[in-house]
Amino acid sequence: MKVGIFDSGAGGLTVAKSLIEHPIFNEIIYYGDTARVPYGPKDSNTIIRYALEAIEFFNNFNIDALITACNTVSAYALPSMRSKANYPIFGVIEPGILALHNRIKDKNANILIIGTRATINSRRYEDELIKLGYKNITSLQTGMLVPIVEEGITEGKVLDAMLEYYFHNLNIPDAIILGCTHFPLIANAIGDYFHNKPLLIHSGDAMVEYLLNQGYKALEKEPQITIYASDNVYQLRQIAAQWL
Amino acid sequence: MKVGIFDSGAGGLTVAKSLIEHPIFNEIIYYGDTARVPYGPKDSNTIIRYALEAIEFFNNFNIDALITACNTVSAYALPSMRSKANYPIFGVIEPGILALHNRIKDKNANILIIGTRATINSRRYEDELIKLGYKNITSLQTGMLVPIVEEGITEGKVLDAMLEYYFHNLNIPDAIILGCTHFPLIANAIGDYFHNKPLLIHSGDAMVEYLLNQGYKALEKEPQITIYASDNVYQLRQIAAQWL
Repeated sequence: MKVGIFDSGAGGLTVAKSLIEHPIFNEIIYYGDTARVPYGPKDSNTIIRYALEAIEFFNNFNIDALITACNTVSAYALPSMRSKANYPIFGVIEPGILALHNRIKDKNANILIIGTRATINSRRYEDELIKLGYKNITSLQTGMLVPIVEEGITEGKVLDAMLEYYFHNLNIPDAIILGCTHFPLIANAIGDYFHNKPLLIHSGDAMVEYLLNQGYKALEKEPQITIYASDNVYQLRQIAAQWL
Repeated sequence: MKVGIFDSGAGGLTVAKSLIEHPIFNEIIYYGDTARVPYGPKDSNTIIRYALEAIEFFNNFNIDALITACNTVSAYALPSMRSKANYPIFGVIEPGILALHNRIKDKNANILIIGTRATINSRRYEDELIKLGYKNITSLQTGMLVPIVEEGITEGKVLDAMLEYYFHNLNIPDAIILGCTHFPLIANAIGDYFHNKPLLIHSGDAMVEYLLNQGYKALEKEPQITIYASDNVYQLRQIAAQWL
């Protein structure tokens, strides 16, 4: 089976990585809209328009399923995308919620959601967690962490200053939803900032768990992956070579 | 006379501000391509394509001249843009070079150019300065400063850590070209980092100087400005209300 992975840029490679380490599909077609990245600060209408253009892109590939690795796209565009496709489309929010729900039984646990402006403003994670009965939820826009990761910074003073800036007056979280595909790359630094080793929810790993729950079967063999971009594809393939 | 100002997003408002404080045109039409911002990390072909679409946008307004406030666009797209327009188009690089040249007579002065990846890779500032005989030029990609400014951070620990990250092993510059429209908003912090009070070249002020040199006349009355965006125009107008 052939799966498409759509992301606003390079970040979704962290989801691709989970599907390479835990194979479910034989073939991955990765498409990053690097010509218009980032989606996080943009308007919902713009995000939906770009997501529908991605569907057109994948029309060339006869895919069996599509994963929108980008949290921002998952927050806004799934219904519109699904209305234009004849294969299942999976966003990362529902898998993230379920991964947390399977692990955090205490409804009074402190849950921290971090993501881009658009993802946080959508309240998609927050509303679902409230429906499940969780009571102590903090949502935080941490958009500046995205360019930090894209610069290749995963430790050091710049990242420390940024984490302090965002986290310094928060309650200690029991779980953190890494609500942007870039954040798994700084998961260690985020986890270390709090000294209680909070549970970190990673979109890629949550997606693997979710798909297996949906009845997809684990494969033995690593999938073949091909990478496309709307901007300079060589640059994205370089990043992929580094990350994967 | 009516001038268009084109920028990849909000940054070009710093150029608009100079043209409001030192009026040369009666009317400013500002267009920010906020749906695809930032241009700085993107490929030159993509940047040129977007710039040509901006020319199409301005076809609706019967402008007498166009300013590309964005350094990245100025570095790559001026010839293509000029081939599609019947009015003069001014980029910010030539004015910046002339502003520096008028003030720094010592060809051994240390000159620091900071800008986005695309602007620095273009070597436009660097090559022109070399032609003028300057010998000690340092070019530095400081793209992470853009989202910092967009977050509204103009002082404090995050910015300090970032400046330290970029500047810690540089020679003390005699002049700094602020080669991105966002950087005037953190000019104080950049100037303060070095204790010698380096000359700071600001694209907007350089543009005013350049236009007056070209024969445009200073006006008494503040221009009227109208702001358009390719994404959410209300958000951009809010930023404008804050900055201008």
